[in-house]
Amino acid sequence: MEYLPRDVFTIADAKRGDIGNTSSHYAKAFFEELDFDSITLSPYMGHDAIAPYLNYEDKWAIILALTSNESSKDFEQLMVADDEGSSNRKQQKLYETIISKSLTWAHNDRIMYVVGATKADEFISIRKLIPDHFLLVPGVGAQGGSLEEVSRNGMNSHCGLLVNSSRGIIFASQDENFATMAASKAKAMQVQMKEYLEKYCI
Amino acid sequence: MEYLPRDVFTIADAKRGDIGNTSSHYAKAFFEELDFDSITLSPYMGHDAIAPYLNYEDKWAIILALTSNESSKDFEQLMVADDEGSSNRKQQKLYETIISKSLTWAHNDRIMYVVGATKADEFISIRKLIPDHFLLVPGVGAQGGSLEEVSRNGMNSHCGLLVNSSRGIIFASQDENFATMAASKAKAMQVQMKEYLEKYCI
Repeated sequence: MEYLPRDVFTIADAKRGDIGNTSSHYAKAFFEELDFDSITLSPYMGHDAIAPYLNYEDKWAIILALTSNESSKDFEQLMVADDEGSSNRKQQKLYETIISKSLTWAHNDRIMYVVGATKADEFISIRKLIPDHFLLVPGVGAQGGSLEEVSRNGMNSHCGLLVNSSRGIIFASQDENFATMAASKAKAMQVQMKEYLEKYCI
Repeated sequence: MEYLPRDVFTIADAKRGDIGNTSSHYAKAFFEELDFDSITLSPYMGHDAIAPYLNYEDKWAIILALTSNESSKDFEQLMVADDEGSSNRKQQKLYETIISKSLTWAHNDRIMYVVGATKADEFISIRKLIPDHFLLVPGVGAQGGSLEEVSRNGMNSHCGLLVNSSRGIIFASQDENFATMAASKAKAMQVQMKEYLEKYCI
């Protein structure tokens, strides 16, 4: 953190999710001690696992919604009743319920959601639920997601996407030229992103 | 870890849950470098978030099922269809689906489940799903769960419970007598547990 320039937006991809008492201490560690701008969080344990992170102005809680991995189908995409009391109501996927419920916990400028680039089709229905929230999008690069599809389906009028490639850049080469290769991969993605921004951020 | 006697069963209550590549490295860190006996894991991301931990003989993956916190009702207790394809099948709670699905991922001696002491009634139905698995039970002590109810509803013929009190013991006193007070709280719990073992472990 000391090495990074201060104008870089930093994400602790720590996927924390614990009882309130522990979460308060994690929030303090990541947001105060380490001064990260944001942290990824697992929503499984519900509101009190997330709430302590929402007390920080200018900090972001990035909640796992639909992740980029194959096994997201195991639980994240299960159909749940959207109202516990009534069996006739329409069903939705677990990750949609998580989005719908958690977006009431704080204003748009405190919460983002993780939506994997490998699930490009799902961005359309997600944008109906949360037109204005920022989405953190992993899975472009090593995991094979399409930046263009994600941009077409997921961008809104203020962009609304924070697209991440980690292994595609940092492992671009294992040789002595790794710095040049990593820079080149990062640049190529930025150029692509610029094109899609002009095309789809409208 | 160096300070603890080697015959103490150690739990890294780290609640990790990440994509397979990252999970492999966490498994290596906790089970090889730090040599923990077990780690708590968040199941939200599905099988590939858990699988790397299951490759270690004599190590335990402890999966969050029904946690002790108030907000476990937000998502863990949501009703989900127990078969995605069919709407006529009976529904069950999300944490029950997580137990049913994950128990097929490894033999009983690799997986435990977290079930909070504050949910003592739920142990009865959980024991129908998993009569033989060990359960890690937090929430006795500071969080108010009843050790007797948990023992009555959750014990099986080989005990099957690993009951944890953290804050109730380590914060027993803030004064100079803290060591004596902590020892006394721990001893009191052990004596109670001995009574319930004789009564309910049958």
